[in-house]
Amino acid sequence: MSPPEGLPPMQYRYLGRSGLQVSALALGGWLTYGGHVENENTFACMKAAYDVGINFFDCAETYAGGESEKVMGEAIKKFGWKRNDIVVSTKIYWGVANGDNRVNNVGLSRKHIIEGTKLALERLQLDYVDLIYAHRSDRNTPMEEIVRAFNHLIDTGKAFYWGTSEWDADEIASAWRVADRLGLIGPVMEQPNYSMIVRDKVEKEFIHLYESTGLGLTTFSPLGMGILTGKYNDGIPADSRLGAAKDGFVTSWRENNVGNAEWEKKIAIVRNLKPIADKLGVSQATLALAWVLRNKNVSSAITGASRPEQIYESLAALGCVEKLTPEVVKEIDEVLGNKPAEMVRRY
Amino acid sequence: MSPPEGLPPMQYRYLGRSGLQVSALALGGWLTYGGHVENENTFACMKAAYDVGINFFDCAETYAGGESEKVMGEAIKKFGWKRNDIVVSTKIYWGVANGDNRVNNVGLSRKHIIEGTKLALERLQLDYVDLIYAHRSDRNTPMEEIVRAFNHLIDTGKAFYWGTSEWDADEIASAWRVADRLGLIGPVMEQPNYSMIVRDKVEKEFIHLYESTGLGLTTFSPLGMGILTGKYNDGIPADSRLGAAKDGFVTSWRENNVGNAEWEKKIAIVRNLKPIADKLGVSQATLALAWVLRNKNVSSAITGASRPEQIYESLAALGCVEKLTPEVVKEIDEVLGNKPAEMVRRY
Amino acid sequence: MSPPEGLPPMQYRYLGRSGLQVSALALGGWLTYGGHVENENTFACMKAAYDVGINFFDCAETYAGGESEKVMGEAIKKFGWKRNDIVVSTKIYWGVANGDNRVNNVGLSRKHIIEGTKLALERLQLDYVDLIYAHRSDRNTPMEEIVRAFNHLIDTGKAFYWGTSEWDADEIASAWRVADRLGLIGPVMEQPNYSMIVRDKVEKEFIHLYESTGLGLTTFSPLGMGILTGKYNDGIPADSRLGAAKDGFVTSWRENNVGNAEWEKKIAIVRNLKPIADKLGVSQATLALAWVLRNKNVSSAITGASRPEQIYESLAALGCVEKLTPEVVKEIDEVLGNKPAEMVRRY
Amino acid sequence: MSPPEGLPPMQYRYLGRSGLQVSALALGGWLTYGGHVENENTFACMKAAYDVGINFFDCAETYAGGESEKVMGEAIKKFGWKRNDIVVSTKIYWGVANGDNRVNNVGLSRKHIIEGTKLALERLQLDYVDLIYAHRSDRNTPMEEIVRAFNHLIDTGKAFYWGTSEWDADEIASAWRVADRLGLIGPVMEQPNYSMIVRDKVEKEFIHLYESTGLGLTTFSPLGMGILTGKYNDGIPADSRLGAAKDGFVTSWRENNVGNAEWEKKIAIVRNLKPIADKLGVSQATLALAWVLRNKNVSSAITGASRPEQIYESLAALGCVEKLTPEVVKEIDEVLGNKPAEMVRRY
Repeated sequence: MSPPEGLPPMQYRYLGRSGLQVSALALGGWLTYGGHVENENTFACMKAAYDVGINFFDCAETYAGGESEKVMGEAIKKFGWKRNDIVVSTKIYWGVANGDNRVNNVGLSRKHIIEGTKLALERLQLDYVDLIYAHRSDRNTPMEEIVRAFNHLIDTGKAFYWGTSEWDADEIASAWRVADRLGLIGPVMEQPNYSMIVRDKVEKEFIHLYESTGLGLTTFSPLGMGILTGKYNDGIPADSRLGAAKDGFVTSWRENNVGNAEWEKKIAIVRNLKPIADKLGVSQATLALAWVLRNKNVSSAITGASRPEQIYESLAALGCVEKLTPEVVKEIDEVLGNKPAEMVRRY
Repeated sequence: MSPPEGLPPMQYRYLGRSGLQVSALALGGWLTYGGHVENENTFACMKAAYDVGINFFDCAETYAGGESEKVMGEAIKKFGWKRNDIVVSTKIYWGVANGDNRVNNVGLSRKHIIEGTKLALERLQLDYVDLIYAHRSDRNTPMEEIVRAFNHLIDTGKAFYWGTSEWDADEIASAWRVADRLGLIGPVMEQPNYSMIVRDKVEKEFIHLYESTGLGLTTFSPLGMGILTGKYNDGIPADSRLGAAKDGFVTSWRENNVGNAEWEKKIAIVRNLKPIADKLGVSQATLALAWVLRNKNVSSAITGASRPEQIYESLAALGCVEKLTPEVVKEIDEVLGNKPAEMVRRY
Repeated sequence: MSPPEGLPPMQYRYLGRSGLQVSALALGGWLTYGGHVENENTFACMKAAYDVGINFFDCAETYAGGESEKVMGEAIKKFGWKRNDIVVSTKIYWGVANGDNRVNNVGLSRKHIIEGTKLALERLQLDYVDLIYAHRSDRNTPMEEIVRAFNHLIDTGKAFYWGTSEWDADEIASAWRVADRLGLIGPVMEQPNYSMIVRDKVEKEFIHLYESTGLGLTTFSPLGMGILTGKYNDGIPADSRLGAAKDGFVTSWRENNVGNAEWEKKIAIVRNLKPIADKLGVSQATLALAWVLRNKNVSSAITGASRPEQIYESLAALGCVEKLTPEVVKEIDEVLGNKPAEMVRRY
Repeated sequence: MSPPEGLPPMQYRYLGRSGLQVSALALGGWLTYGGHVENENTFACMKAAYDVGINFFDCAETYAGGESEKVMGEAIKKFGWKRNDIVVSTKIYWGVANGDNRVNNVGLSRKHIIEGTKLALERLQLDYVDLIYAHRSDRNTPMEEIVRAFNHLIDTGKAFYWGTSEWDADEIASAWRVADRLGLIGPVMEQPNYSMIVRDKVEKEFIHLYESTGLGLTTFSPLGMGILTGKYNDGIPADSRLGAAKDGFVTSWRENNVGNAEWEKKIAIVRNLKPIADKLGVSQATLALAWVLRNKNVSSAITGASRPEQIYESLAALGCVEKLTPEVVKEIDEVLGNKPAEMVRRY
């Protein structure tokens, strides 16, 4: 299957202040690969992504209990991609795939960071990943132990850069403080949830880190679990991901979120975004993804895909970014009603 | 052999301030494995320990002249345990198993730390241990040489954490001072003798180290060479370890300790503890072990076992800890008569 | 083919303040090896160079798209030279040979420095190079990332020394500042363009670096792309490199340089140097190369060669250096009219 | 061949302030092994040394052009000695065995230190040496480059300790200053020439280094090229080493030393020492060696041996040390007439 004609070219952005360039769109293995998407489908999506210029493939030891890493590794091998042409990541915290789930397979102890990465690389069939993330913070492990262990991975050639996922700003700043004191490398990137409906961390909490540490963002859930596409505006279709899920994360997310007051409030907002999308001549999904990409602190927006078409569609957002003029952005902010107040620097 | 029903669940504790979790009870190879316990028996004990949730297996290069490491390594291999599910330790100081006992096989020279660990790993059939201990302090080797050599083991992937055994508080503090100056890793844990009848080091000497360095303890001899079980209250039974020993450490220990005034004083104390154990409805052994576990600075209490039943029995102590109310603890202290005075912080 | 009799002996110079000695003349693979010079010819040139005492062979990942490294590696293997008898270099920046030219194959990200070097060593069939250069500066990558990555190569045994090529003085000073702060190794050598007609960087911009950082120079283009040989004094011969080039770097250089006012000015200068060469009894090429070698900050002047004779000819320059008395140097400077004013040290 | 009865037991001394213990007598490969002593003889000497408790075997890349390392390595393998039971050293500076003697095979560049050690280990058939020496100082290589390269050897497991040979006190102090600034390991031991007739460096120049850096000494030439044995008191016997030498170092040493005024002065002194040796009931050789061993800063005195008997004889010196009372030492000093004045500490 060939990409349709007329797609905008891929953009590449530096990962924060580092010298690494990642495609503005990344393909992620969360909720899809190794899980409900059949392997042949995963291969097709990865090939489509590579062919349109996506170079960043995101994974985690916990995705589908390790199966996401396995199928991604298979695809890389199958297509014979040169290692230097792609940026592969994984994340360490929940080592569900690594053992019998005994105590030290979860968290950021030196033991789990090193053992978990070793096992992840075996599943990926790679000698190293480009990016290794601490998938969550672990307040029970000293920051010095965490910083040292990720530097050990870099020093022993298992990764080029390390970062965090869903850490608080003070935790990231603390990691840099430890790294600076010891002459070690601090976290280069953070992977937060970021979309029109989840924006406080990226636009307020992290705001001083971009300048002080050069933090780059690889964001996930640009479409807010699908709600920003507008496909749930009139209820949950039975064949949608939320509608079809039988168990696992999506099912419990549905039970905790869909239908309550918060959900209805979000649906109302999404409905009000439709006229803006229509005016720009794009789908609501394209508008939502373009809105994420308009943020210069976002190095890469990670999207999932269960069909190649979804990858081609997401490319449209790159072409839409320039349509987000200050006036349009202001109009969107008024609908969203959640723009954080400007931060004042006090120190 | 299956564990009996109704055993309390295993508890896991952080090893001091580190991010590693060890089972509150550990299985140790001292005096047993590779020595007078037959290998099949060792295998049975290790399996029983693993099955009740013990994840920490403690050894040393000197135990049974290296045979303890060999049989532990055999067991790990035989049962196919995942490396990330267990915490394995060894200790370096007396390299009796390593050579012809020429000078550099004892002590903490860089040569012996590195060579001894290499040989220990070969006996264990492992690529690394989780914990590596300096089995004693060595005042003839500069602290900087010791700290550097243990960091070399960590940097080259031979161990995740290093610690000490039977070091004095000033030696541990000195190791941290050297480590801090050089930006290296200090000792995370200490392995002291700790029981109702040996408590000064843990409860007095180390008291400031817990906060200043995050020191964790893996303690040994919780039953005071058996005396706290009450089994010697009426003399030394011929089939007990003390009674049956024909040579080696136990025999010489017996000669130096059993029957003298100090011994009789201890026996009197143990007899006076019996009413308390009876009141709580537990054996004296359970009371003694629970008393060790009640100390929050104890990350893991190492016990030996020559039969699986002993492991099941030790688990009872975990259920007994909550019975040690402040009133009971006070009552025990009055019988013991050895509670250290509170330390005053002067600097 | 044996070298002619009467050649002056090779000279060896320390590479800046380092302990490494390089031959004052080096053989470079730029524009020649792996490109338009046939492999057998390359082998002959390398053997001739080795036989007259040249120990430094210079290459880059980008030369001839990786073919220069391959043919140099073949030659080293073919002649069975001992690894410790030669100094081999390569340069990392343009990884054109490494992939499909996707984004991270160019520049000085940690990813490209490490991956590019790995692939260069494979092409060279070597475990390590002696010298590894950053082939250009990369203002988009933090200096700390660059300095750390080159130190990683040294720490992991992939190179002995690192340096720069065509960096500005402030960039080199900045690299040293970062290295000093982190206790790492700074760049030992710089590879600039240096000849009678290109001298500002070497004689003015870098002037304080020689003393403050011990910078050594391995210079290229001593003959100014051939113009200083005098062979273009009467037009471009059809069988010269400039005349024969059909495509690639030389062709575009010709289009941008030959025939314009700047070119005519240079030709006029070269014509005026002829009487000086005649007076010294040497060719213009010999004079130009000797003039480069007279500079004590030049550790090695890299020359290309497409025939062994060219190597023998370049040796004559070594014998000519002593003829460059202060009076002759002054006379040359008057013809060149480009001697930089003396730098005043202000800090 | 078994050692004769009644030999004094070997003594072990710490190597300076390090934790390594070396036998007070060491066996050295200089002038003997790989050279004029046949291999079978070398094997016999090494076995005799090991059997009397010598654990330190000293070598250098330059001894017999690399052949000393080869034959020592063969002996270690042949006798199946455990690696941890012996202390093996080599020295890097003159890499005559490593190549065609081109420039970088001599000196202390990072290139030669790393390449030379790699080749020495291959000749020794060992993974590492215990001690690696800089065989001379190299004022043309920055001290930082030297210190970093020896630390690289230690960090990569090629050696446990590094030291110097025939360095000046200020050079050793400078190495420690660099090491301290960079948090690296400084030189633990120095190998000087030390005997009754060469004592200034050990007894005066180095005097403050013993305390400030913990410097240990492994000394060579305790018998002053044989002169202190008294065997040249009546001329040079034809079958002595000095008499029999046909070429190489010994021949040129003979030409430069034997027979001149300085020689005759030494012979006179040696004749005057004879009555003292007679009074103590030992040979002059034993007296001379015991006099070296009486110095507590000497960790090990290296002696050569071309026959096992020489090793047994040297052991006698260990038994003689206690006979060197203050009165005897004073008497010797009066004969020698070269006791350095006491150093005054000025800083």
